[in-house]
Amino acid sequence: MNSKFIVIEGLEGAGKTTAIQTVADTLKQHGISDLVFTREPGGTPLAEKLRQLIKEEIEGEILTDKAEVLMLYAARVQLVENVIKPALAKGSWVVGDRHDLSSQAYQGGGRGIDQSLLSSLRGAALSDFYPDLIIYLDLPPEVGLQRARERGELDRIEKESLDFFHRTRTRYLELIEQDKTIKKVDATQSLEKVQDDIRQILFHWLKQREMQE
Amino acid sequence: MNSKFIVIEGLEGAGKTTAIQTVADTLKQHGISDLVFTREPGGTPLAEKLRQLIKEEIEGEILTDKAEVLMLYAARVQLVENVIKPALAKGSWVVGDRHDLSSQAYQGGGRGIDQSLLSSLRGAALSDFYPDLIIYLDLPPEVGLQRARERGELDRIEKESLDFFHRTRTRYLELIEQDKTIKKVDATQSLEKVQDDIRQILFHWLKQREMQE
Repeated sequence: MNSKFIVIEGLEGAGKTTAIQTVADTLKQHGISDLVFTREPGGTPLAEKLRQLIKEEIEGEILTDKAEVLMLYAARVQLVENVIKPALAKGSWVVGDRHDLSSQAYQGGGRGIDQSLLSSLRGAALSDFYPDLIIYLDLPPEVGLQRARERGELDRIEKESLDFFHRTRTRYLELIEQDKTIKKVDATQSLEKVQDDIRQILFHWLKQREMQE
Repeated sequence: MNSKFIVIEGLEGAGKTTAIQTVADTLKQHGISDLVFTREPGGTPLAEKLRQLIKEEIEGEILTDKAEVLMLYAARVQLVENVIKPALAKGSWVVGDRHDLSSQAYQGGGRGIDQSLLSSLRGAALSDFYPDLIIYLDLPPEVGLQRARERGELDRIEKESLDFFHRTRTRYLELIEQDKTIKKVDATQSLEKVQDDIRQILFHWLKQREMQE
């Protein structure tokens, strides 16, 4: 099967790290072991520097919503052009911790950036590059933030108001309605059930691809 | 007179620093002494960090043209929103070492980034914010680069091919044809003559504004 780009999406504390491990294990059971893992924003030396500038406050300077989204797309272009596309071209599968859907949800829903502006940025930065499969871990922000809080100190984004995360989740759910390549998992379930759902989705999807190719 | 935003543009070695001093002196002679100076990319703590990431190579990573232009606009949004607009609002005049015309010329002409992409980025980032006056110092790249070389080590941009700077200058000249608020100065002339031209342009422009307001 041709190499694919699989992305895990979801709010803080939704369980993305465990989900990525489950995806990797399932792929390996399926004989796919040449895997590249990415995270966004980040994943290249420059993109990691941008991640730092986005996550931390610099000398008390207010980061405008527009500069934030421009930096996110700059980091994404670097990752796609320098890491993801080359990996796919040489036959590796890529498993991503977040990708473009995060910007659509957080910046579009959370920050309220105009949808047409986001679409034109997306087009300008990425053209027709899309993940092959997106698994979205859905849960109420209250639950996720509680988990994130237990993990340690919160960064600039994680300190946003609960309302911000509600708007983000609402946008995630709207976007999923419009795009049937995104699979939703109920992340409030037990860890075992979530992992099982992910395995089922991936197994079913791999079978379909095998038949198509 | 209402406060204004005046920008000096031109290739490396065109004499922007001296020109800015001439503008400042002329404004002061005119009784305008509350001046704020900016440079691009840069001029805020975050924008200066972005400038560094644009100018230096990070661990040998190739900076894509798209990420470069996205970072330039991120830096510009920060400068406009956090420095230029507040300065103008409290009555200061702003004198800028480069602004948006540089991206149109360097990224549009030099890098060959699509004009419509640049326009939509400009609109998304800056809406209807424009300088009141732009003075463009025109000279052949050979002359400017020789001057820049004599000044010391060249950065990532200054190391571009001569052809890159020819395309940049050509785009500058095209854009000037389309926009009568941009004044061109022949920067191959003697320093005295260049300064005199800038003084004349500024003096004439101030007189016009005084009559209009």
